[in-house]
Parts: sequence; structure tokens; C-alpha cells
Amino acid sequence: MGRDVTTGAITAREAWPDPRSLRAAIAAGEWDGALDTVPHGYTQSTVVIMPRRYASDFHAFCQRNARACGLLWMSAAGDPQTGPLAPGGDIRRDLYRYRVWKDGVHVDTVDDVTSLWRDDLVSFYLGCSLTFEQALDNAGVTRKAGRIYTTGLPCEPVGDFSASLSVTMRAMTPTNAIRAIQVTGRFPATHGAPIHFGDPGAIGVSDLATPDFGPPADVAEGEVPVFWACSATAVAAAEAAKPDLLITFDPPYMLVTDRLVEETAVF
Amino acid sequence: MGRDVTTGAITAREAWPDPRSLRAAIAAGEWDGALDTVPHGYTQSTVVIMPRRYASDFHAFCQRNARACGLLWMSAAGDPQTGPLAPGGDIRRDLYRYRVWKDGVHVDTVDDVTSLWRDDLVSFYLGCSLTFEQALDNAGVTRKAGRIYTTGLPCEPVGDFSASLSVTMRAMTPTNAIRAIQVTGRFPATHGAPIHFGDPGAIGVSDLATPDFGPPADVAEGEVPVFWACSATAVAAAEAAKPDLLITFDPPYMLVTDRLVEETAVF
Repeated sequence: MGRDVTTGAITAREAWPDPRSLRAAIAAGEWDGALDTVPHGYTQSTVVIMPRRYASDFHAFCQRNARACGLLWMSAAGDPQTGPLAPGGDIRRDLYRYRVWKDGVHVDTVDDVTSLWRDDLVSFYLGCSLTFEQALDNAGVTRKAGRIYTTGLPCEPVGDFSASLSVTMRAMTPTNAIRAIQVTGRFPATHGAPIHFGDPGAIGVSDLATPDFGPPADVAEGEVPVFWACSATAVAAAEAAKPDLLITFDPPYMLVTDRLVEETAVF
Repeated sequence: MGRDVTTGAITAREAWPDPRSLRAAIAAGEWDGALDTVPHGYTQSTVVIMPRRYASDFHAFCQRNARACGLLWMSAAGDPQTGPLAPGGDIRRDLYRYRVWKDGVHVDTVDDVTSLWRDDLVSFYLGCSLTFEQALDNAGVTRKAGRIYTTGLPCEPVGDFSASLSVTMRAMTPTNAIRAIQVTGRFPATHGAPIHFGDPGAIGVSDLATPDFGPPADVAEGEVPVFWACSATAVAAAEAAKPDLLITFDPPYMLVTDRLVEETAVF
């Protein structure tokens, strides 16, 4: 059985046996993008790639806004290997799709960036909340997929990198929200506990019906929206800096790492 | 400096150096009941004393309703010692005040129960949320004292023991509530994380202005009420069982144990 991360629906499909197999299928162009076949229980990473001359400021931006932009690993310039997150991997082909940006404009979406690779490209691997989705599922608190919104909360800017905080929202009862806060507090590398619950207007989200990503919000009677910081923030900040070349993941297709969810959990 | 647990006010008074000194002063009739002089950082216990013939059912009631009635220790019948919670203590005189109940009716409030003691009396020591008050204070999430309310949520009854769940309510912003949920989740022996936040009506609390104990609620703009299970539940259940003799603590005067708060915390 699998679970579709964009709708939360449980399906009868089989998941890939492990992330390495899935990544090999992706690199070979053999995966159909069916999210319910992503193996469960592994840390997922948002990927942002940019030239070295921008990397120091972006690194500082991630540090100062770590709730949204928790850095799992960063590569040396020019190194396409995915390091300890996915030994043997190659970030030029291990994502299902890539967005290619030039001077801050999204110009293309491709499934391989080998031909675009340069010796000065630095890859940033950031924690993604899909990491704790399974923990929420295991705790029985929600099967609703997260929706992404841009808040009115400014991040601390660094150089040309600036953004308003992006969040994922999941609707649940107060009882389940209390449990979800405890469950996700165990995952500080992938956003940790929520940053807000209740009134969306208090964080500058005016309309839950129109998320930046995902289907319209589904907040039932007796449920409250609960908001977690989201690494979409990092993409927005990188877009704002307008590097000559920027390569990012194409949501909701993250890097599925070999690192077990429990490896990035505390206690 | 001390803190008044009923108003939350910080005072300039000195706390007793340790629980043993405070208990000795109480036993000698030398303490004036000033709560801001209670030493910080120690587990506090609700005390409920009843004849052995009721003890088995009450023990089961506590087990089945452990979120409210977490049992720190119970004595053997007739033994007035406070055991590992307060070595050398004597529960007949170590509380500031006691309520005495006969056949379910509160008939007297006294400062020593030595003359009432019987060989068949069993003492139950339950966790109290005053234990995590300092942790909330240290986390900077609230300095407002908890108010006690009776909810419409039924406990699981055992024999003649039954009650609706009692709760303590503390008002705070969503940001602080998220932190408070994580902080108090560390204290499962003393109620742990909240059982609800937001709409009081959802748990059958109709009017925050009239708590069972404490001043009227003070919920500021932008704050939400957050509710924790409360060991007042145990007193209500014991009252309902109408034992021929029942001795309980007189709120807000708990047994201040020698056990550090961190000794009842997890991780």
C-alpha cells in the first residue's frame, strides 16, 4: 500500500523496496512519478543548486532561518554526489524533475541537469516536512496532505536572499494537533514543531482556499489549521537573489535519501 | 524571588531553601501559607487518603484515568510515611491544610490529621501540574496561573468512583502553546501534554469566567485557552464514592516532595 502525498489517499500500489532502487529507476527514466510508490520511512530533502559565488550568502540565509531551511548537507562546488544522504547518488539525475531558473526566472522544467552542470555549482540539501508525514500517519493524527502557503512573516534576509516564510498547513482536531506538535518536535532538522495554529490571518495567510501548492484546504468542523515552516521558503529566497543559474527540485518531487526518518529525529 | 501560584505574580520573597525545610515548618505550624515561598523545581503531589476497603477501586480508577490521576506513589494501609517522595515525612502533618470528608460531605478543614489517623488508611500521591509550572515559566510561555474547571468529559468509572474530567487552563498565544505542549509532554507523570486548546465548549466548559478554583480567566486578544488534565478529578471521584472517611489536600496546598521536577520528566 502507498499514500499519495498530494491528496493523502491510501492506494493499493506497492512502494519501491528502498530509496536506492527508486533513485536508480528515476535516473534511468523508468519511474512514472507515482508518489504513492515512494518508500516510506526515509528522510526527504528539498534540493537547491546555485553557483559558488552565491553559496555563502545562501548558507547564511539557511542558518538564520533554520526553522524553514534546515540544512541536512551541502556539497563542495562542482561535486554532484549526494554525499551521506544517498551514497553513490548523483544529484544531476536522481530527482524526478528539476526547475531551471535564469536570472530569477523559471525558464524550464527538465528531468536531468547533467548538460547544465558546471564546476562552480553548490548543492544544498534541506529538510522537507514529507519526512515527518509518516510519523504523523503512524500517530493517527492526519492523513490529509499538507498545503503550502506564503505567510506575511518576513525571514531574516542575507545579501540578496530574502523571502516571506512559506508554511505547510495540515488540518486536524485540537486533540490531534497536540499530538502532532509532540510528534513533529522530534524532527528539528525537518522543521520540527509547528509555528502556528488557528487563525491563518495571524500569520498573514488570507485565504486557505488558494494554497501555493496542493489542493484547496479541507478544514472540517472541529478542526483547526496547523502550520509548519516549509523549505519552499528557500526556493523563494533563491529566486529573489536572481542568480544567473539556479536549479531546484520540482515539487512535490524531493530527493528520497537513504537516511531513515529516525536518523534525523531526536529522542 | 518567589511566584504566587494563584495569581502568577512574581514577588520579592525568598523561597525556602528546600522542601524538607518547608515541610518541617509546616509540621511545626510555622509556615504562613505564602505560596511564593515554596521552593522551586520540585515535584508537587495531590494527596488523597481513604480506607483500605475503597483503595483497590480507587487505584483502578487512577489507572484508567491516568492522564488526570497519575499515581506517583501509594502507601501501605496505616503507613503515614511519605515514602520515596519525601523520605522521613509524615503525611499526617506535612500538608499545610487538609479537607476532611465523611460519607462524601466535606465536614472540616484542619492543619493536622494525626488524631484522625487509622490503621486502615491508604494514602495516594498523585502528580500535580504545579510540577511543570516552573518548566513553563523557564520556557517563557506563561506566567499566568492555572485555573481549574470541570469539563463535560466523563472519566471511566470504577465501582463507586466516577467524575467528569477536571482541567487546569492557562491562556497563551498559539506560538507559546506550541512550546508549552512540547515542554509539558516531558512530564507524563504529572498530566503531560494538554488535552485540548481553543473552544472551551468543545470539552463542556461553558464559562471561563467562573473557574472552580483560581481567579476569573484572563484570556487576552490573540491568546487561546489551553487545557491540561488535573488531579482535582481524583478528589471529585473520591467524593462521589462517599467513603466513611476521606482526607484530601486543600488546594492549592500540595505536598512539596523532595523529588526534583526533572526526576519525573522524560528525555
